Amino acid sequence: MTANAASGLVTPQKIPFETPLVLENGQTLPRFDLMVETYGTLNADKSNGVLICHALSGNHHVAGRYSADDKYPGWWDSMVGEGKPIDTERFFVVGLNNLGGCHGSTGPLSENPANGRDYGADFPMVTVKDWVKSQALLADYFGISQWAAVVGGSLGGMQALQWTIDFPARVRHALVIASAPKLSTQNIAFNDVARQAILTDPDFCGGHYAREGKIPKRGLRIARMMGHITYLAEDGLGKKFGRDLHPDGLQYGYGVEFQVESYLRYQGDKFSERFDANTYLLMTKALDYFDPAAAFGGNLTRALQHVEAGFFVASFSTDWRFAPDRSHELVKALVAAQKSVQYIEVKSLHGHDAFLMEDEAYMRAVAAYMDNIAKEDEA
Amino acid sequence: MTANAASGLVTPQKIPFETPLVLENGQTLPRFDLMVETYGTLNADKSNGVLICHALSGNHHVAGRYSADDKYPGWWDSMVGEGKPIDTERFFVVGLNNLGGCHGSTGPLSENPANGRDYGADFPMVTVKDWVKSQALLADYFGISQWAAVVGGSLGGMQALQWTIDFPARVRHALVIASAPKLSTQNIAFNDVARQAILTDPDFCGGHYAREGKIPKRGLRIARMMGHITYLAEDGLGKKFGRDLHPDGLQYGYGVEFQVESYLRYQGDKFSERFDANTYLLMTKALDYFDPAAAFGGNLTRALQHVEAGFFVASFSTDWRFAPDRSHELVKALVAAQKSVQYIEVKSLHGHDAFLMEDEAYMRAVAAYMDNIAKEDEA
Repeated sequence: MTANAASGLVTPQKIPFETPLVLENGQTLPRFDLMVETYGTLNADKSNGVLICHALSGNHHVAGRYSADDKYPGWWDSMVGEGKPIDTERFFVVGLNNLGGCHGSTGPLSENPANGRDYGADFPMVTVKDWVKSQALLADYFGISQWAAVVGGSLGGMQALQWTIDFPARVRHALVIASAPKLSTQNIAFNDVARQAILTDPDFCGGHYAREGKIPKRGLRIARMMGHITYLAEDGLGKKFGRDLHPDGLQYGYGVEFQVESYLRYQGDKFSERFDANTYLLMTKALDYFDPAAAFGGNLTRALQHVEAGFFVASFSTDWRFAPDRSHELVKALVAAQKSVQYIEVKSLHGHDAFLMEDEAYMRAVAAYMDNIAKEDEA
Repeated sequence: MTANAASGLVTPQKIPFETPLVLENGQTLPRFDLMVETYGTLNADKSNGVLICHALSGNHHVAGRYSADDKYPGWWDSMVGEGKPIDTERFFVVGLNNLGGCHGSTGPLSENPANGRDYGADFPMVTVKDWVKSQALLADYFGISQWAAVVGGSLGGMQALQWTIDFPARVRHALVIASAPKLSTQNIAFNDVARQAILTDPDFCGGHYAREGKIPKRGLRIARMMGHITYLAEDGLGKKFGRDLHPDGLQYGYGVEFQVESYLRYQGDKFSERFDANTYLLMTKALDYFDPAAAFGGNLTRALQHVEAGFFVASFSTDWRFAPDRSHELVKALVAAQKSVQYIEVKSLHGHDAFLMEDEAYMRAVAAYMDNIAKEDEA
């Protein structure tokens, strides 16, 4: 497929879907593209497909590099590749940019067929359920009737979970990592502050900033800075920066004084230059809305009753955005629904971001689980 | 004094200080006013004075009401008053608005004698040490050579602690509540995001918004919304709002959908209309800079070696902005320095804000400690 195994180089492809997609909010997308990357080879009976769902700011570029001198590999290159926990010598791995994204899939930056202009604020609100629906069409495109596994961290884990509920027969295994069956009140509150920072940025222009030649960078920067704090563990942040001063030292002013300020502002600046504000807004809303138990009177066990997939659930000790307790909720409901589940709680200093890091116990647990999946398939 | 005991009505007074005040950053304030409220009566030997130091957004209006139909009493009315834990029938209680404040004391909104315009961004950065220095001049004004107690929560607790270090002979007791001997990296990080929201608001005008007829409300609103989340406990927020929807219900849009959004935006709006942005900025900087151990090679025990005051330290179980661990650091250092200390860890659902709430165990502990102080004095 698109990955060149010999060189480790990968090429994204844009896949068009010309049938209308009815969304959960009642609106219809007349057509859409999904930007996709694949790694490894789909086997003859098309049983080794693994779907990787991305989190808030992720995309289709999961692994590999675009050129020999490409400095940065895909966002989960430690996890996906030859001989890696999700081994592309055994699995056909699919990464995509979600609908509403800003990395090539149809989203707010795309042309609205209704008027030939960019969607901007007119792009419809999409939900985790909508993403899963579009991903099922992507599976059809590849001729994959059942994924060996659907895998994701954070918001990606929510998609993996939704897959098992909406298409029970199409998922053999779900790997739900650093995620939750729904956001907490505090999660929603942080998301709302992030959105308000963007929505009240004068350059937001009601969401039609692109056609005004503007970018609401200030708001996006603040949103990312705040988000970033919540992705990191208090302890990890302390160990990394402490109260260390920037080389410029104490100035009794509002420039950079502490190293952590320099780090955060840099993260915010970088993000505000590469990410689309409308996409950020709708991704956070998809997070807020996610609550598969709601349709079952809040009973998650009942929501899971028809699930056929086996589950691998992982959480990280210092993750306070999606704390281990939130994974416990899912594990308990799966056990109560008599589903197969393996759970690991990983000791880590990296907070929520730990799911992207190379912790050995974590990598080995995923590798072992994926190895069993491959063996099932070979058996 | 200014409190009318019979009616519970109080009147603030502005006290002028016409001598220059040299600040920690090397700048000098040529003169300053402190806005003050007092409650109770100073005894003949002036030994029953209690100073209340305020936190980030507090002021001199600690207790009582301004008129019979005044809906809102002072911010610590539950703690300070006749028959209350800090009993104004026994103590002469002094509340003040700190230097740099926006409630009547000299601050960014005041006239700069150098040019007859408002200070705005030209108001010098003040530190906890500077506040304590100005409060010592306030003690002199009242003829109080030694406070029976200096009391404060959060940033207020930092002032109480600094008092015991800078003026050991002038403080008999320090009540340090929901505070810390210095901010954590995460605390500084949150403060920096709040400041960046204000500093990058186009209406901030480099801090001279007042003379431009503008107010950086957007930034102040975002800062407060974010701050508010960190003042509340995750559990408390969940119990109060859960995922409850606003009466307008789900609209798949960016209006208010969840009740917690309505609450937070209201808090942000209200704050942005009543608080000065430059004051907010400098108060957060005073928090960041506070680190009395720094001058002693980071050794807090050594910083406390000449302290004469007895300490009452309190923390709250769900406070994650100034977690119990941070109070433990202070308690351990006090014990190591062989100082007298009583410590209480209060179970509460109210997070950092718990120090302002009427938890029974907490109120009784403060009342008992204050009762002992009064008895010492009478003995």
